Amino acid sequence: MNLTLFGVPNIPMVEPGDNLLDLIDAGLSSINESLQVDDVILLAQKIVSKAEDRYVDLNTVSPSADARSLALEVDKDPRKVQVILNESNEVVRKRPGVLIVEQNLGFVQANAGIDQSNINVEGVDGDDLLLLLPIDPDASAARLRRAVSAKYGIDVGVIINDSVGRAWRMGTVGLAIGVSGFTALEDYIGGTDLYGRELLVTQVAAADELAAAASLIMGQTTEKTPVVIARGYCPVEPEDAELQGVQPLLRPKQLDMFR
Amino acid sequence: MNLTLFGVPNIPMVEPGDNLLDLIDAGLSSINESLQVDDVILLAQKIVSKAEDRYVDLNTVSPSADARSLALEVDKDPRKVQVILNESNEVVRKRPGVLIVEQNLGFVQANAGIDQSNINVEGVDGDDLLLLLPIDPDASAARLRRAVSAKYGIDVGVIINDSVGRAWRMGTVGLAIGVSGFTALEDYIGGTDLYGRELLVTQVAAADELAAAASLIMGQTTEKTPVVIARGYCPVEPEDAELQGVQPLLRPKQLDMFR
Repeated sequence: MNLTLFGVPNIPMVEPGDNLLDLIDAGLSSINESLQVDDVILLAQKIVSKAEDRYVDLNTVSPSADARSLALEVDKDPRKVQVILNESNEVVRKRPGVLIVEQNLGFVQANAGIDQSNINVEGVDGDDLLLLLPIDPDASAARLRRAVSAKYGIDVGVIINDSVGRAWRMGTVGLAIGVSGFTALEDYIGGTDLYGRELLVTQVAAADELAAAASLIMGQTTEKTPVVIARGYCPVEPEDAELQGVQPLLRPKQLDMFR
Repeated sequence: MNLTLFGVPNIPMVEPGDNLLDLIDAGLSSINESLQVDDVILLAQKIVSKAEDRYVDLNTVSPSADARSLALEVDKDPRKVQVILNESNEVVRKRPGVLIVEQNLGFVQANAGIDQSNINVEGVDGDDLLLLLPIDPDASAARLRRAVSAKYGIDVGVIINDSVGRAWRMGTVGLAIGVSGFTALEDYIGGTDLYGRELLVTQVAAADELAAAASLIMGQTTEKTPVVIARGYCPVEPEDAELQGVQPLLRPKQLDMFR
């Protein structure tokens, strides 16, 4: 397999309501490229959130007593803590400067995946502005996939990725937070190895592996390339609805020894 | 950046003592390819371990009383548990069927990263055979890098990867366990975002992101492609010795909230 990943250049600052496919098309045209069958489009979470206007102005937030108390404990702005709690099912770890939660969608992330860098809204001080994850990133990915199909009559895969910290290892890696038209968790249970012995369980987080590669290309300090095209990995939408989207990548809490 | 990853085909079953660069060269020649300046060579841990003869025959292992007791607790072969303990600094989590340790090199992995699939040694029953991680994967990577430089006079990066399970998420992803000529952890501390606000901490696990991408290409059920070339990502060896190798990717235990 030859896998090529390239960034889509010339994506402008994304504004609420922007049509991401139009921006991707224009960016691809600028390098004489276009979407092809079986491409996988990888989008930085941040531009999806911006297009979906997931901004919160901290000046509109009134922290509860619980949020104030937790904010004192973790040394964070109580308004921001309130927003994190609103976006979360539960606090997983806390200590000064750190608040790791299970975000409403099931992702274990610092600060519920909320961004404060590289965002700007006219009339709001940047320090008072937060950007939440998309409400339903699988649905966001599916919408883009359907739009590509409607416009060009081709099937593509779509992955929305985010840069996330990890247990045990330093540094962030790109992870999939929204998936459509792509088997997020590839399952080799019941296969055999090269010597015919049964492989009891081998599940590969394929969407996370591709998200990681895309993240490397998107870079971190600029938003020049929030869209990456992966060409050469043939994406497949699972038939079983339970295997679709990002859900298969989330370890159920009762199976997780690290909560 | 255009990043292309391709598998090196026709790598034979690797035997102890094999010269991996010779095998890579032959595989590349078979598709009219050759190593280029700034390529990154990604190798599956398994072939490095095989070339370094990191096999253990369980028939030669006498489990201690501690290993027997732990084996009963986690429902594993006491001889295998003994080998895992030999390879580990400490047990991180245990329960029936699961033994997660800090491997001697600092990696938190199930079974100390020991393989039992896709290995074969003449005269030993496959079920009695284990394959350990390389003794010093950074040194293994550096040897290959020096060999490339000596043979072709070019600089490349080398990453040894392994497929590893994670907290919170299902499925394995490729991670770097040995690194040479490549900045494993890219550090953006002190940079600014697009709006000039200071980015306090952004560290990107670049070697893990590339290892993940390579793992996707290597596949899991066959060992047809245990070597992947990444072309288009310019690897840089850090000047500071403390930033070289895989060590910067390992979170010090005292900074890890998930031990």
